[in-house]
Amino acid sequence: MDDLLQPLTEGNRRALSRAITLIESTRRDHRARAVDLLSQLPDRQALRIGLSGTPGVGKSTFIEAFGTMLTEQGLRVAVLAVDPSSARSGGSILGDKTRMEHLSRNPMAFIRPSPSNTELGGVARRTRETVRLCEAAGYDVVLIETVGVGQSETLVAEMSDLFVLLLAPAGGDELQGVKRGIMEMADLILVNKADGDLLGTARRTVADYAGALRLLRKRLQDPEGFPKALPVSAVEEIGLDTAWAEMTTLADWRRDHGHFDANRAAQARHWFMAELRAGLLARLDWPDARARLADLGDAVARGDAAPGQAAADMLDYLRSTQVTKPD
Amino acid sequence: MDDLLQPLTEGNRRALSRAITLIESTRRDHRARAVDLLSQLPDRQALRIGLSGTPGVGKSTFIEAFGTMLTEQGLRVAVLAVDPSSARSGGSILGDKTRMEHLSRNPMAFIRPSPSNTELGGVARRTRETVRLCEAAGYDVVLIETVGVGQSETLVAEMSDLFVLLLAPAGGDELQGVKRGIMEMADLILVNKADGDLLGTARRTVADYAGALRLLRKRLQDPEGFPKALPVSAVEEIGLDTAWAEMTTLADWRRDHGHFDANRAAQARHWFMAELRAGLLARLDWPDARARLADLGDAVARGDAAPGQAAADMLDYLRSTQVTKPD
Repeated sequence: MDDLLQPLTEGNRRALSRAITLIESTRRDHRARAVDLLSQLPDRQALRIGLSGTPGVGKSTFIEAFGTMLTEQGLRVAVLAVDPSSARSGGSILGDKTRMEHLSRNPMAFIRPSPSNTELGGVARRTRETVRLCEAAGYDVVLIETVGVGQSETLVAEMSDLFVLLLAPAGGDELQGVKRGIMEMADLILVNKADGDLLGTARRTVADYAGALRLLRKRLQDPEGFPKALPVSAVEEIGLDTAWAEMTTLADWRRDHGHFDANRAAQARHWFMAELRAGLLARLDWPDARARLADLGDAVARGDAAPGQAAADMLDYLRSTQVTKPD
Repeated sequence: MDDLLQPLTEGNRRALSRAITLIESTRRDHRARAVDLLSQLPDRQALRIGLSGTPGVGKSTFIEAFGTMLTEQGLRVAVLAVDPSSARSGGSILGDKTRMEHLSRNPMAFIRPSPSNTELGGVARRTRETVRLCEAAGYDVVLIETVGVGQSETLVAEMSDLFVLLLAPAGGDELQGVKRGIMEMADLILVNKADGDLLGTARRTVADYAGALRLLRKRLQDPEGFPKALPVSAVEEIGLDTAWAEMTTLADWRRDHGHFDANRAAQARHWFMAELRAGLLARLDWPDARARLADLGDAVARGDAAPGQAAADMLDYLRSTQVTKPD
C-alpha cells in the first residue's frame, strides 16, 4: 500500500497535494507509483461539476461565493482548473489562490491550479486523476473550471457529472457567440451579474438562453425542464442557493434513473481509449524514435522515400527495438 | 522488380488498374508488394488538381467537358474520386464511368472510382498512392474530385498541387454557405452554369466570390491576382480554356518560385506522419488486441480498473506480444 494512501483517504491536505504532484510528474517511476496509487483508491463519489465561463464573466468571484456557500452547508469543496493558456504559457501571473482569496484559506476547501507547461491532453489526464484523488480525500463537490475557448470545454464536460455555463448579460445578437456545441453540453446556464444596472439585461438574457435551450433536442438524461437558464449574482450572492438546488435535483434524478452511473462508465471508457491512443503515439517521442523520425521525414520530403514505405520502415523499427522507455 | 512496373510505366491501362487494385487490397502480402512497387516508381510529375463541388453543381459534366478538352490538347488525364459516402455505403449506385460517359471511353483518359467500404483515412491513402501510380503511368493531369462535405476537401487539398472549388450561381446570402476554411484552401473558384437564364446570376456570384477572396489573407504561394473566381459553363463548354490557362499560370509561377516542390515536400511529410500514426493505432484492431481491449474496457466501465491503469496494462501487453500481424 502506498504511504500516501492512508493520510489521503483521511482527508490530509498535505497528502492530497503530494499525491497530485506525484500525478503531475512526468518521471517514469513517479508515473508508475501514481498509476498504482490510483488503483488503490476507495470508491467514494463527489459531485463533479464542470464550469465554463469566458474571461470577464466573473468566474473567480462566482466560485469564491458559490464554494463558500457550499462549505457553509458543511460540504467539502475542491476547485480544479483546466487552463489551455497555462498549458501554453506555463501558468497565469495571477495565481488561482489570489483569485479566490477567501476560499483558498477555507479549511473546507481545496484549490489546485492547472498544471503548467503541459499540452491540453496531459492537463486533461492529470485533472481527471486529480478529481479521483479529491474524491478519495472525502471532498463532496469537485468544481472543474475552464475558460470558454476551444477544446477545453469538451474535455471538462467529459470528466463532469454536470456541466454549467457561466455567461454575462448580453444583447440578443451576442447569444450567437455561444457555439451550438457548447450549448448542447450545458446542463445549466447561469447568467451572472444579475444585479444593479444589469439586472434587466440579465433577466432578458436568461429568457433568451432559456428559449435557445428549448430549441435543442431533448436529451435522454434530462428530466422535464432541463437544461435550464437562471440569473445569479456572484457579487451580491443572489441565486446561488437556487443554482445549487437545481444541480442537486438534476444529479439526483440522474442517479435515480441510472444515467449518472452510465455517464461515468462511458466517460471512463472514453478516457481509457484516449490514454491508450496517446500511449501508443508517445512511442514516437522517445529519443531514438525522434532521431529516426527526423531522418525518415527528411528522406520523404526529398522524395527519396515514399510516405508509405517510410511509415512501414518506422513501424518495423519500433516493433523491433527495446520495449522499455529510457528514463 | 515488380512485374507490373514495366507495363505500368509504359502506360498500359490494364497494368495501372491492377496496380491500383493491389494498392486497395488489405491483404498483408498485397500491402507489402504495394509498398515495394510504390518505392520503385519513376519520378514523373503530373499536375495534381483537387476539385470539390457540392452535389447538383454539375461536377461530372464539368469533368467530362474539361477532361475532354485537355485530351484534345494532347494531355493524358486521370480522374480519381474521394467520396466519403462511398466510404460509408460501399459505392454509389450510379458508377463514375456512367457519370462521365465520353471521358470513360476516351483512350487518353483514365477514370477510377473511389474505393468503397473503407473509412476516409484509408480512402485518402489509397487515392494518394493511386495519384503516384497515374504519374508513373505517364498521365499529365490528375483530377482528384470530392463532394463538398466534411473532411474530404481537406484530404484532397493535402494531396493536390492546386485546389479548385466548383460552385453554383447563388444569391449573395448563400455565399456564407461556403465555409471560410474551404475558401482559404481554394486557388480557383469556378462558378458553373454561367449560361442561359443563369448567366447574370453567375456573373454576380463570380463578383461576390472575387470580393470574398480579396478579403482573405494574402498567401505566400500566390502571385498577384490569386486566388481567383471565374465563370464557366460545363454544358456550353464556355470558359474551360480560360480556367485551364489560369491553372497552368499558377502552377508555373509556383514552380518558378519554389513553392510547388516545397508544397509537395510538406505534403509528403504530412502523409508520412499520418500513416505512421494510423499504423501505430492499427495495432489495436488486431484480433488479440480487440479481445483484450473489450475486457479492459468493460473493467474500466464497471469501475474495477482505473482508465490509466487499464491503458498501462494494454500498452504492456502490446509491447510484450507478437510483433507480426496474423493474416
